[in-house]
Amino acid sequence: MHNKSGPSRRKFLTTGLIAGVAGSAARAGDPTITNVQPWAQELGKGVDERGYGLPSPHEAHVLRKSVPWLTAEDTSSINFTPLHQLDGIITPNGLAFERHHSGVAEIPPADYRLMINGLVDTPMVFTLQDLMRFPRYNKVYFLECTANSGMEWRGPQLNGVQFTHGMMHNVMYTGVMLRDVLAAAGVKSEGKWLLAEGADAAGVSRSIPMEKALDDCMIAFKMNGEALRAEQGYPARLVVPGWEGNMWIKWLRRLEIGDQPWHHREETSRYTDLMANGDSRRFTWIMDAKSVITEPSPQAPILHGKGQTVITGLAWSGHGVIPRVDVTVDGGINWHQARVDGPCLDKSLHRFYFEFDWDGKPLLLQSRAHDTTGYVQPTKDALRKIRGVVSNYHNNGIQTWSVDSDGVVDNVEIS
Amino acid sequence: MHNKSGPSRRKFLTTGLIAGVAGSAARAGDPTITNVQPWAQELGKGVDERGYGLPSPHEAHVLRKSVPWLTAEDTSSINFTPLHQLDGIITPNGLAFERHHSGVAEIPPADYRLMINGLVDTPMVFTLQDLMRFPRYNKVYFLECTANSGMEWRGPQLNGVQFTHGMMHNVMYTGVMLRDVLAAAGVKSEGKWLLAEGADAAGVSRSIPMEKALDDCMIAFKMNGEALRAEQGYPARLVVPGWEGNMWIKWLRRLEIGDQPWHHREETSRYTDLMANGDSRRFTWIMDAKSVITEPSPQAPILHGKGQTVITGLAWSGHGVIPRVDVTVDGGINWHQARVDGPCLDKSLHRFYFEFDWDGKPLLLQSRAHDTTGYVQPTKDALRKIRGVVSNYHNNGIQTWSVDSDGVVDNVEIS
Repeated sequence: MHNKSGPSRRKFLTTGLIAGVAGSAARAGDPTITNVQPWAQELGKGVDERGYGLPSPHEAHVLRKSVPWLTAEDTSSINFTPLHQLDGIITPNGLAFERHHSGVAEIPPADYRLMINGLVDTPMVFTLQDLMRFPRYNKVYFLECTANSGMEWRGPQLNGVQFTHGMMHNVMYTGVMLRDVLAAAGVKSEGKWLLAEGADAAGVSRSIPMEKALDDCMIAFKMNGEALRAEQGYPARLVVPGWEGNMWIKWLRRLEIGDQPWHHREETSRYTDLMANGDSRRFTWIMDAKSVITEPSPQAPILHGKGQTVITGLAWSGHGVIPRVDVTVDGGINWHQARVDGPCLDKSLHRFYFEFDWDGKPLLLQSRAHDTTGYVQPTKDALRKIRGVVSNYHNNGIQTWSVDSDGVVDNVEIS
Repeated sequence: MHNKSGPSRRKFLTTGLIAGVAGSAARAGDPTITNVQPWAQELGKGVDERGYGLPSPHEAHVLRKSVPWLTAEDTSSINFTPLHQLDGIITPNGLAFERHHSGVAEIPPADYRLMINGLVDTPMVFTLQDLMRFPRYNKVYFLECTANSGMEWRGPQLNGVQFTHGMMHNVMYTGVMLRDVLAAAGVKSEGKWLLAEGADAAGVSRSIPMEKALDDCMIAFKMNGEALRAEQGYPARLVVPGWEGNMWIKWLRRLEIGDQPWHHREETSRYTDLMANGDSRRFTWIMDAKSVITEPSPQAPILHGKGQTVITGLAWSGHGVIPRVDVTVDGGINWHQARVDGPCLDKSLHRFYFEFDWDGKPLLLQSRAHDTTGYVQPTKDALRKIRGVVSNYHNNGIQTWSVDSDGVVDNVEIS
């Protein structure tokens, strides 16, 4: 049934099966409707201005999760976004992926300073208030850790999209353009590289070519409307759209202008791509086109049995927008073009859907993203042929989920 | 200085004044930079998966607020969005305006049911799971209570944009199209109106013409990626884009199809516009074009003194997008076209900015929104001439803030 695609079939899949499939005819005396439910019999809780609003207690299981064996300490650990429980393209701040190298720096905003030094006309120091006086801009960008899906290089490791793909979030940033702030100090003509340095104990720092710094990089102080969360670099972080998350320096403390890269720890011993022969690929900054099905997935099995079924997922590319996503339910024998819905924004997550009539037989689900350059998300095996399996970084291979006849979903690979 | 506008002046205002104005030249021995700050001397807090992420303790003052004298009980009260502390267009869920008529209904999602009855082929009952099997869509829409700015009809009442304009939020909804769900029951040809009814103790219900129901209305179960908050109708609410917030029925329990409106409480004794002669305007559903400056504003004074200054605010229209916003700093003698930045989406908030060089003299700030029909946001006096001052609803008049030479901002009116 899933094998016959094409325009007329797709129209049927997305619109024709609705009537009569979901829901049931109302029955006289159905107690769920004809009785007055308990919550309609008494006043509910009133408004309360004393605290920041939280999710319903019925959603208390929707949380970031870590994988204890991944890192030695919780100060150098990872909290993964629960992608299987989210929809749309905005990651709520309370569920946004976090990764630190020496824990969360705790900076009183009045004490925050950003210094610009090196090859500039006037070394400068900015307060947070100073930064907020530059023209502000608003952009929705994905941040993906370059180690996202890294454990999967050597075969299925973790049985949940939260863990295979949850080193990622997508929020609306408000901030100022890095080029405007640099212009205040005056970058000398020999300044070709920028070192961005964080104020945490690790002093995470990365070299960024000036072309990128002057293009779309931002210094952000708000995410999804409100102040940056502490774990996202409060009060100010660097935003490096489409490039690996490690470069988005949090608790941004210093920008140095130089004529060559610095070769610091995070761009030598880490965040380089170890190849099979022992060489390392370096400065592989751009996150290539990638996608994943978030539901159904191992943590979000199909509970409703056969019939009308929604497949949904995310697609993104560091090169820009996603013009097309394909979905297969038979392990790649037949591909169907998915419906991408919601704002289609540059270097942002895109949400896709594929609705179909499940016959209750086992499925092999995959998605593949296309970018505007013609690039198509590769299989994991295709990546392994070129890169080997000793790297932890830049794994944008196609993810496979198996679904059994009970709707149970597992992380598998097919060759 | 603010009186000379025009393209070349605006370019200078937004780009020319950056260098040297914000920030200060770095001084040798500046302790804020050359010392290693305390937060760089020790490990910070590690990742913690035990709770939903919260704002920095330094942002603990950023909260919704109520106005005790507005309503008799907190179960029928209002918690206002702190617009003066937000930027961009997304309202974080924890700060989103809430208004109830009998408190927050507490509905276990497994017990949720939606019934469709009346002039349909097959009366039906849907579980939440059933609803989630329909094709899903993602849209960012503003919700504005029709009483937003209602206290201002009779002159300045509340000294803060949170209270004058904070009955409003703007989030990305994920849900299903109302027309798809109605199609499952089959609306009879004589079905011209829909009654949407909530499951709270107040049983809030509103009549909606079928044209709107079949156009862009949604049944939403997610906001900003995660489940609806309890105070926003968990687990499912109606979304009625561009129309007054009271119609966006929360805890949606029942949809009845009829051939005429029901004339229920919330569309007769309430949510009608009382005119000076005692008549009421009824079914004034669409929220007209409106805007307000959120910063500077009474709760967000100018603290940095004269020089480079950012004015920012929000504009919106129930008729669609906002093609243009004007700002004045001299009480309307000269108007400048503001820079609208960020996604420009149908029936969504739009964020605007106007950067200028403040000479430190008193200001009278206003903004006015244009919509795509050619309509321009009117003055409050122009509205009063037609509607009188006894209504509480649909006040979309131009807001004025005065700024004194110390940067203190007040809610004022000028004639």
